[in-house]
Amino acid sequence: MENTNLQDYSHKRYNILTGEWVLVSPHRAKRPWQGQNEEISTEKRPSYDESCYLCATNTRINGEINPDYKDVFIFTNDFAALQKDSPKFNVNDGLFKAQSENGICKVICFSPDHSKSLADMEVADIKKVVNAWQNEYVSIGEIEGINYVQIFENKGAVMGCSNPHPHGQIWSQTSLPNEVDKKNQQQLNYYNDKKSSLLGDYLQQEQTAKERIIFENDDFLVLTPFWAVWPFEVMIAPKKAQKNITEMTENEASNFAEAISVITKAYDKLFNTSFPYSSGIHQAPTNGEENKHWHWHMSFYPPLLRSATVKKFMVGYEMFGSPQRDITAEIAAKRLRELI
Amino acid sequence: MENTNLQDYSHKRYNILTGEWVLVSPHRAKRPWQGQNEEISTEKRPSYDESCYLCATNTRINGEINPDYKDVFIFTNDFAALQKDSPKFNVNDGLFKAQSENGICKVICFSPDHSKSLADMEVADIKKVVNAWQNEYVSIGEIEGINYVQIFENKGAVMGCSNPHPHGQIWSQTSLPNEVDKKNQQQLNYYNDKKSSLLGDYLQQEQTAKERIIFENDDFLVLTPFWAVWPFEVMIAPKKAQKNITEMTENEASNFAEAISVITKAYDKLFNTSFPYSSGIHQAPTNGEENKHWHWHMSFYPPLLRSATVKKFMVGYEMFGSPQRDITAEIAAKRLRELI
Ligand SMILES: O=P(O)(O)O[C@H]1O[C@H](CO)[C@@H](O)[C@H](O)[C@H]1O
Ligand SMILES: O=P(O)(O)O[C@H]1O[C@H](CO)[C@@H](O)[C@H](O)[C@H]1O
Repeated sequence: MENTNLQDYSHKRYNILTGEWVLVSPHRAKRPWQGQNEEISTEKRPSYDESCYLCATNTRINGEINPDYKDVFIFTNDFAALQKDSPKFNVNDGLFKAQSENGICKVICFSPDHSKSLADMEVADIKKVVNAWQNEYVSIGEIEGINYVQIFENKGAVMGCSNPHPHGQIWSQTSLPNEVDKKNQQQLNYYNDKKSSLLGDYLQQEQTAKERIIFENDDFLVLTPFWAVWPFEVMIAPKKAQKNITEMTENEASNFAEAISVITKAYDKLFNTSFPYSSGIHQAPTNGEENKHWHWHMSFYPPLLRSATVKKFMVGYEMFGSPQRDITAEIAAKRLRELI
Repeated sequence: MENTNLQDYSHKRYNILTGEWVLVSPHRAKRPWQGQNEEISTEKRPSYDESCYLCATNTRINGEINPDYKDVFIFTNDFAALQKDSPKFNVNDGLFKAQSENGICKVICFSPDHSKSLADMEVADIKKVVNAWQNEYVSIGEIEGINYVQIFENKGAVMGCSNPHPHGQIWSQTSLPNEVDKKNQQQLNYYNDKKSSLLGDYLQQEQTAKERIIFENDDFLVLTPFWAVWPFEVMIAPKKAQKNITEMTENEASNFAEAISVITKAYDKLFNTSFPYSSGIHQAPTNGEENKHWHWHMSFYPPLLRSATVKKFMVGYEMFGSPQRDITAEIAAKRLRELI
């Protein structure tokens, strides 16, 4: 490895996309664990569950009946955190500052098969999910007052997912959320300065360094970013600088689906469990601007650290200071690479 | 309440101390919960546990024997994330940027009594903890190369605490962690502009508004900040602008201990459980500068939302977008105030 200090001693690494730091303590991986163990469900789920509100033909809490869908099914969240037509207001009262926020929250079922996760699905079926994401990004992004579309998935009970049916969410809103705002700024600064893509230049450096790359195909790199926070955090990014997912050709969409398939399968093998994570796609705002500085990417933030039941807690120091990790990005990449 | 829109409709609120936003969705509190339930231990703990590595006279993993301590006991963390004398280095390789980070991690036992938490301790005994924090802030802060001292506590298995013995931690380091850096900048900007304390001016506005104040004594306010992220997040802050905890008189230290006692007791009553949280004190860096812009404060970030077993998950949208809450700061303050 290029720099052995990074494998042996405490240091901080800089996240070029957010401008923030992560504390890395490689020597600490030896710490014994006497804390909480997560419960894991080893129960095999049926392909159809009559009590599941996401299965085809079942009735949801608000009385609506799901269609007899065959691949992807999308509907507006029955308990949406954002509403499209709620009143607009502004609070500017000394040091109390607030602003109304409008938006749309949707749920996207990845498959009618209750028993599956992305890791179990065929690449062709994952591609249907990718195509649905593309369509939603366009159609939601066109709506007046929607300037950003956040696609994400919470997988596993430990990640707050309340239903094991394979599904994700799409929240869209008027303003840029914090994380997107940071990445927007960092990419813009770099683009203004160098007239090239920050993430694109980084990916080239990674292709030379090799040690954090887990998988690649013609169009995509799957890697552990240098500044990864979560123990087995992974990023999938297009080699070409594309500002949003609609710029993918059909063939690129297939290769993106393949990348998702490869990494989710490796995850499941790592601790021999259906691997929990939150994943999300960061891409250009839908604010009508050119956004040439954007290079879209999908990230996976999985909490597990040592086994199917021992997760990394982002608590005390992490909440008040900075995120902290023990196992290095290079070791995590190596372990995942060996499972492919 | 001053602005009913804030109780009814989605909006974002601005955190004056970090410069970031939180998404508030008051209408969403009605959402049913079908997700993970936390385990709670109702087991009554003994005052002494022979298998506890924090109890007096017991042997720790590294073979050291704890003294027969009577109030507070402090030692260097046996598996410290930061080390004082690890080598210094700098990685500045294109878009790979890293820096060595040195520091000291200590554990502070609040009481020899294994069965207690801060909520069960007398104010006079909590004051001994406060005095110990003051001493550590001074003695660690004086060490060459230590520019920031983070005092915090992780309480409860759900917060990654691996031992129920009442204890907290003190991590100190060369550079300012992310959260501290943001607060440093925001307070400095305001101070340069107005020559007064950002938090001090805010607290005065809260004293007039009243609706977020939970408790106060001569020297301290206990309140739910306007921009609170966690469902029952609370801040304790000195009314007078003090840059760090060593500026407290003995009498103020007692009143601070009282504030801690009052809020931790209210927490335990809320869901009739030993309330989990991470708490931490943000205060001026120990970098030898004047830091006149700093106004120290202690925050509690508790995860529970609806009951002793249902927590708020900061996952998908929160990780990729912004933190999100359902119950408003005003409602949370009211519920806690009623328990005092
Ligand atoms: O030091 P502990 O209590 O073993 O560990 C706990 O607190 C640390 C500091 O917040 C975190 O980094 C760990 O993830 C958490 O499990
Ligand atoms: O929408 P769900 O799946 O009910 O809820 C889950 O995801 C949301 C978006 O990340 C979070 O705000 C919730 O805390 C979490 O439990």
